Amino acid sequence: MIKITLPDGSVRSYNDSLTAMDVAKDISEGFARNVISAKFNDVTIETSTLLTTDGNLILYTWRDDEGKKAFWHSSSHILAQALEELYPGVKLSIGPAIENGFYYDVDLGDRSISDKDFKTIEDKMLEIARGKHEFKMKSVSKADALSLYKEQGNEYKVELIENLEDGDITFCDHSTFTDLCRGGHIPNTGIVKAVKVLSVAGAYWRGDENNKQLTRVYGTSFPKQKELKEYLELLEEAKKRDHRKLGKQLELFAFSQKVGQGLPLWLPKGAALRSRLEDFLKKAQQKAGYEMVVTPHIGQKELYVTSGHYAKYGEDSFQPIKTPKEDEEFLLKPMNCPHHCEIYNAKPFSYKELPKRYAEFGTVYRYEQSGELHGLTRVRGFTQDDAHIFCTPDQLDTEFKNVIDLVLYVFGSLGFENFTAQVSVRDPENPDKYIGDVENWEKAEQAIINAASDKGLNYVIEEGEAAFYGPKLDFMVKDALGRSWQLGTIQVDYNLPERFDLTYKGSDNELHRPVMIHRAPFGSMERFVAILLEHTGGNFPLWLMPEQAIILSISEKYEKYAEKVLNLLENNEIRALIDNRNETMGKKIREAEMNKIPYMIIVGDNEEKDNKISVRQHGGEDLGMISITEFSNIVEAKINETLKQF
Amino acid sequence: MIKITLPDGSVRSYNDSLTAMDVAKDISEGFARNVISAKFNDVTIETSTLLTTDGNLILYTWRDDEGKKAFWHSSSHILAQALEELYPGVKLSIGPAIENGFYYDVDLGDRSISDKDFKTIEDKMLEIARGKHEFKMKSVSKADALSLYKEQGNEYKVELIENLEDGDITFCDHSTFTDLCRGGHIPNTGIVKAVKVLSVAGAYWRGDENNKQLTRVYGTSFPKQKELKEYLELLEEAKKRDHRKLGKQLELFAFSQKVGQGLPLWLPKGAALRSRLEDFLKKAQQKAGYEMVVTPHIGQKELYVTSGHYAKYGEDSFQPIKTPKEDEEFLLKPMNCPHHCEIYNAKPFSYKELPKRYAEFGTVYRYEQSGELHGLTRVRGFTQDDAHIFCTPDQLDTEFKNVIDLVLYVFGSLGFENFTAQVSVRDPENPDKYIGDVENWEKAEQAIINAASDKGLNYVIEEGEAAFYGPKLDFMVKDALGRSWQLGTIQVDYNLPERFDLTYKGSDNELHRPVMIHRAPFGSMERFVAILLEHTGGNFPLWLMPEQAIILSISEKYEKYAEKVLNLLENNEIRALIDNRNETMGKKIREAEMNKIPYMIIVGDNEEKDNKISVRQHGGEDLGMISITEFSNIVEAKINETLKQF
Repeated sequence: MIKITLPDGSVRSYNDSLTAMDVAKDISEGFARNVISAKFNDVTIETSTLLTTDGNLILYTWRDDEGKKAFWHSSSHILAQALEELYPGVKLSIGPAIENGFYYDVDLGDRSISDKDFKTIEDKMLEIARGKHEFKMKSVSKADALSLYKEQGNEYKVELIENLEDGDITFCDHSTFTDLCRGGHIPNTGIVKAVKVLSVAGAYWRGDENNKQLTRVYGTSFPKQKELKEYLELLEEAKKRDHRKLGKQLELFAFSQKVGQGLPLWLPKGAALRSRLEDFLKKAQQKAGYEMVVTPHIGQKELYVTSGHYAKYGEDSFQPIKTPKEDEEFLLKPMNCPHHCEIYNAKPFSYKELPKRYAEFGTVYRYEQSGELHGLTRVRGFTQDDAHIFCTPDQLDTEFKNVIDLVLYVFGSLGFENFTAQVSVRDPENPDKYIGDVENWEKAEQAIINAASDKGLNYVIEEGEAAFYGPKLDFMVKDALGRSWQLGTIQVDYNLPERFDLTYKGSDNELHRPVMIHRAPFGSMERFVAILLEHTGGNFPLWLMPEQAIILSISEKYEKYAEKVLNLLENNEIRALIDNRNETMGKKIREAEMNKIPYMIIVGDNEEKDNKISVRQHGGEDLGMISITEFSNIVEAKINETLKQF
Repeated sequence: MIKITLPDGSVRSYNDSLTAMDVAKDISEGFARNVISAKFNDVTIETSTLLTTDGNLILYTWRDDEGKKAFWHSSSHILAQALEELYPGVKLSIGPAIENGFYYDVDLGDRSISDKDFKTIEDKMLEIARGKHEFKMKSVSKADALSLYKEQGNEYKVELIENLEDGDITFCDHSTFTDLCRGGHIPNTGIVKAVKVLSVAGAYWRGDENNKQLTRVYGTSFPKQKELKEYLELLEEAKKRDHRKLGKQLELFAFSQKVGQGLPLWLPKGAALRSRLEDFLKKAQQKAGYEMVVTPHIGQKELYVTSGHYAKYGEDSFQPIKTPKEDEEFLLKPMNCPHHCEIYNAKPFSYKELPKRYAEFGTVYRYEQSGELHGLTRVRGFTQDDAHIFCTPDQLDTEFKNVIDLVLYVFGSLGFENFTAQVSVRDPENPDKYIGDVENWEKAEQAIINAASDKGLNYVIEEGEAAFYGPKLDFMVKDALGRSWQLGTIQVDYNLPERFDLTYKGSDNELHRPVMIHRAPFGSMERFVAILLEHTGGNFPLWLMPEQAIILSISEKYEKYAEKVLNLLENNEIRALIDNRNETMGKKIREAEMNKIPYMIIVGDNEEKDNKISVRQHGGEDLGMISITEFSNIVEAKINETLKQF
């Protein structure tokens, strides 16, 4: 008699051992048809694995991440078999499932694979898949395993096996193929209905550049052709929306090898866009009672020793700046908080004057290895839309809620409707990891959770994810392609007030410690603009667009009228420009479309006569011939759709 | 027969040798009464020196800097005599004239001088002065000079004399006093009618901290008591206007020992003030066709090797920043121009697209020794209101004039009415000092001179003062106390376009080099705010004031009405705050005066009843009971007095 407990807590009893798939079938035949992998007592198993003891069973379908992992891991076996058949003598090394697919690293000897070969590989994989071969695990002795691969001359598998214990070595067979494997497959190859080889790249054996370079073949696969098609469309769209590509095309930012990698140069249009974002936040912050401050981009090493940043980042970041005559050491600032603490310390405060809310678009510098740099999302210098709120413990709840309001306002005005929140709290089993007294922690965690609930946020609580100095709330937004990005963060901090000996005089005339809130709704200007670019594909909310309209005159004759229209638009605070190049209207429209300009204003004889303009929207919709006032109203209404008053 | 040539070119012939004063008397008895010092053939002489050859004679009065120098140098002899008489055995070392006075460094042994002794010293000096003792130079052999001071045990004079050549050693006598001296005195002590001992300080012998510390006695003196009085008032006023004092009092900025000396922290009110200045300039710049850019605060060392800054500043400035993993070196940027050149290089330009005008409030870092740091005027990090214009050589003239217009607009809007300009051109005798071809230089210099004339500037041309890369125009403003400050600068540069290989495609389809203009109307935000503080004493132009009005309610009863007034003022874009502390009206007014708030708005029973406000101006003027609209009009009119449309 064995008892199988399912994730919903229900228990099923069986007289005999049975496979995971048998349990699935017992639950329902329909469900079983979708089950593709399983875990038993927290160990990944095959669906055909015989369950011989009591235990917890989880059955996965394609909808589960674990199901996808098994699917793609199994697909990499199919890829390997296809490669063996197409490239006889190919030496396999490793082939894991990854996010959205899988790869296999192989040694092709003198041969190579190019994108011309992808179709052949895919066809071979589909042919194998259609055979509905079962994946079957078997134990192999170390000696046998070694001799198999030594015979094949496969030094990679030999090296892998040499590091394994005898008795722990398993292989997986399907069709005529066998491979060293830990397990975790779908029932048979037939479930894989659609495959795509995505790319090939060089990859050093074991990631070590002193080793031989192998060929990494990337692929993905799906249970339905339709899903593959959708995924490839998404990839294509993501490529088009790559912020590095769009940033160049729209002339927003550039990098210079001379200035240095990871150090963006904001070109005029990008700087203007960024400035609009900053002004937008400044305005909301002013209403919310923030005060702007300005602090230098360096500080004495001592400052960061005090703050603890030197201990945390010192060795791995930009090294200290020495002075020629005096024995001084400065660091590029990795964070603005120590400077803001020193601003707080510039004069004594009473509880009546709190909270103080110091905001700064503060540019910070953190060393990243050159290989990790990526456009504006991973840089070495970036500007945080930073602020630090210094308040009494009693004010924390209200202050925290106000920050949530501000963050939600920011997201709403920028078209991010879809977001989740994560409350990161202490690990209750490791109280020593955290500084500050328990009472304050409880208050702070409760303040965050209350605030998140009261504000109706869709949030999860993650234990053990708090910073050592306090709990926090992070916001994850989903972009137009369904990808998740971490944006704003709100953190509670009991640490820096202690380290910088921050005080205020309470109503009891005694000195007390304020609590600090760190917050950044955008996160950083660089990262935010990158995400906004990928989210909107460059079609920013209208209020943010570098150019909101472009005036195209039908011929030189109407250039004067075009100028007049431009002036009227500028009076209505609409950012516009004139394209008076000697090009066809068709070409001008195509380029305006490519430059994502929201409105194309065509002026010719009729328009001039009636003192009107013909307006075509980005994407093609024709708004007809209207007056400038009508157009201004359209623009204003469109702006007000996203940009609300705070 | 000797011929004496005067500065106006006129020549006077005399049969016999005669003194400089004789020549003065020959010109006019009245003029001679004012002559106090002289130069003959470019050598400083006494007015009693016998002229025995032909030569050029310049006669100085108190109005001349050279006259003042002789006056103060002579006064230091009088101070020394007074100290010898009051502190027998005092050892004299050196006592030069300085700006606005003189000092003498003396070794008082165990004694000391405090401000209680100043009056006694001044009285003794005046007693000596009234004796009308003539200053008489004499030659002394090295042996005699040494034996005199060795006898006195004065090791300082002994050391000075040991470094002199026998035959070159002169002394000056007056009354019973003698001193080693190179000469250049006024005729007699009687001309000194007013003296003031200003301060005492410690000063190491020869400025070397390994030497003995002497007592430096600072003083000043004037030919009229009235002039001394005016000068002391000016000093008093300057002390009150010291921007370091005002900056603290008005809570504009602070320094933190932890962050580091010379690295200002802009407090909320200061940051807001600075931001208003920046917005003001941004607006004007936008109209003038500038585009804002944003660049990082560091750049690879290589960037500054290319620009030439590394060769010029490298060793004496902040040292390179190394990275932990890769062999990279970065520098804090000392200037923004290399970054802007790289922005220009981010895409190719045709002549039709020029000029490009890239502006940035760019924070730069330059190492200064800690002893040289001074408030906001001498710092280690500062933000330039920088811009670089890239234009064709043909556009240079117009562009330069447009920059002058912008600079004049900025000065006018900030109440600096009084300024001079200096055109710095090549030294015609050292053509090799400069790079770029002669034709371009001539064009550029002529462009600057033409522009300065056309704009009706009060300018001087200084040969040899150009930068090696191009000529420039600097603006010197006089502040309210008559002190000169260098503010804006406009520079023409042929060097960086060459070094960064900047090009544009001309109408001939060939590549050409653009010319660069560097310009900064404020100079730097830090320096400008410091000067503005000292110029205005904190009474900034109304449009810049941190708070334009403060509302003082007569009692708690009117707090609601005060709130209503505040809202109405905010709607009229007037920055105001309420002082609702439980203090007397007298105290509130005094503090508002001290905080330089331009308008005090008093609300009580009458005001609330009539829906009006009573307004008192900073300085005391009563504007009576008026409506908010009337008040808004007053504020608007006052703002428009200085702040014009560009």
